[in-house]
Amino acid sequence: MSVLIVGSTALDSIKTPKSEHSRLLGGSASHAAISASFFAPVRLVGVVGDDFPKAYVTLYRKHKINLEGLQIAPGKTFHWSGEYEVNMNNRRTLATELGVFETFNPHLPDSYKNSEFVLLANIAPGLQHHVLDQMRRPKLVVADTMDLWLNIALPELLKLLPRVDGLVLNESEARQLTQEDNLFCAAKKIRKMGPKFVIIKKGEHGAFLSSRQGLFLAPAYPLEKVVDPTGAGDSFVGGMMGYLANATGPIEKNLRKAMIYGSIVASYCCEGFGVEATTRATRAGIEKRRRTLEELTKF
Amino acid sequence: MSVLIVGSTALDSIKTPKSEHSRLLGGSASHAAISASFFAPVRLVGVVGDDFPKAYVTLYRKHKINLEGLQIAPGKTFHWSGEYEVNMNNRRTLATELGVFETFNPHLPDSYKNSEFVLLANIAPGLQHHVLDQMRRPKLVVADTMDLWLNIALPELLKLLPRVDGLVLNESEARQLTQEDNLFCAAKKIRKMGPKFVIIKKGEHGAFLSSRQGLFLAPAYPLEKVVDPTGAGDSFVGGMMGYLANATGPIEKNLRKAMIYGSIVASYCCEGFGVEATTRATRAGIEKRRRTLEELTKF
Repeated sequence: MSVLIVGSTALDSIKTPKSEHSRLLGGSASHAAISASFFAPVRLVGVVGDDFPKAYVTLYRKHKINLEGLQIAPGKTFHWSGEYEVNMNNRRTLATELGVFETFNPHLPDSYKNSEFVLLANIAPGLQHHVLDQMRRPKLVVADTMDLWLNIALPELLKLLPRVDGLVLNESEARQLTQEDNLFCAAKKIRKMGPKFVIIKKGEHGAFLSSRQGLFLAPAYPLEKVVDPTGAGDSFVGGMMGYLANATGPIEKNLRKAMIYGSIVASYCCEGFGVEATTRATRAGIEKRRRTLEELTKF
Repeated sequence: MSVLIVGSTALDSIKTPKSEHSRLLGGSASHAAISASFFAPVRLVGVVGDDFPKAYVTLYRKHKINLEGLQIAPGKTFHWSGEYEVNMNNRRTLATELGVFETFNPHLPDSYKNSEFVLLANIAPGLQHHVLDQMRRPKLVVADTMDLWLNIALPELLKLLPRVDGLVLNESEARQLTQEDNLFCAAKKIRKMGPKFVIIKKGEHGAFLSSRQGLFLAPAYPLEKVVDPTGAGDSFVGGMMGYLANATGPIEKNLRKAMIYGSIVASYCCEGFGVEATTRATRAGIEKRRRTLEELTKF
């Protein structure tokens, strides 16, 4: 099955204590789409400006990503620049230039509307709603979000929650959304707001799933070197959705393995700037890391 | 086999956002000894003042802890008081009164000297050395430590490391000791300082083992309510050592399960003030949590 992925398609300029790179391929949909592409065909929905490098279009194509839903609008591509501190956990936004993203209206090509797996990657909740409005009858809808939307678009986000099967968010966002410090309690509270399952991402500490079936604690793949964690969360959810779209059997049964594959694709993401290390991954390499992770966690 | 445990035996006064308790049984050796007692006989080495409540001696005895090495000295028992913030991860020391602990000279009864499993729970490295000096030929020596000793007794601690098989410390201590931000690299660096294995504790995020055999990523037992995390790290290492002392086969092979049991006893510790919830645990309850943890982590 294909995965439809809507989100931001951007250019990222990233500074870390050791290096600086400008106008890398970035955005939640780019990271998620490339990550999902290792497992299932991807249909991308996004917008870029007429300055968007051809090389990145070629890169999407190399990953067999369907670009029928990628609009090219006159103007500049969304550009984000940020800086990481030494420990890579603290990130500071230096500039955000929305460009063509400001007036983005995600319009689905007819060929996309029957997609059974839908990932509403991080983007304004209003646009996530708009994509869902155009879908026929998806089998699984998962949304990601970020603190910005909790701050400036909370009502739309709250209205979205009953429309999705799963919500993926990070620790601090879960706490902010629920005013609950304990993450397991926060996840339960979020499930009462609509989604059937909630996944809380904890970066290097892994992620956990809270659903009616209970909890699943997923480890992160251990890395001795983190080059650039930008997009790791998007890669996690992208890899997860790709795996789910390609797996057989009930989704509840596949979610655990899907999270593990998400963690592994996210580990590649952290090993290079932008999507450079993710694109170098192979399905065989991913399987090798999965076996390693199994070995490192069994007791 | 018995586990010899040396460390602090103290009275703790603890304030959390919800409650306040004074003069609870505390100290690294108390938490570790009670936790180890679920798995193996414990020999305690410590000092208390003549103000030490009889009820706590009775409690040690209830756990069949050998108290031949517990000195009762004229004066006051070591008293620590601290306060937790809302999220329970930030702790502030309000007062430390060393009392009889200031002149503590751990003297091992002859009957202790043949102990094969030795836990040097958190205490000044000089005292940890002094205990080792008195041992015959232990099979396994594990040391815990804290930031205080990194700050004021680093040379003694560095001299201790080649004398122990394993070192257990938390994330920030590992970073401080190695000046290395990445924890997996930090653990490797510490192994080069002497210990055959290093365990880095990450609180609610679990712990990991770094040894010549590779890594093991241990989850924390998920808790919806943390009442008081004081002593959780001591309980972890105590439970781990108790399990190891009672297990058959090579230590390297038993370490993973031992860490899981450590995590589980630590989860009980967090559910009550001082040792109150730990002492209420049962071996059957511990096994039940182990099965649950297996269930929550398999993929």
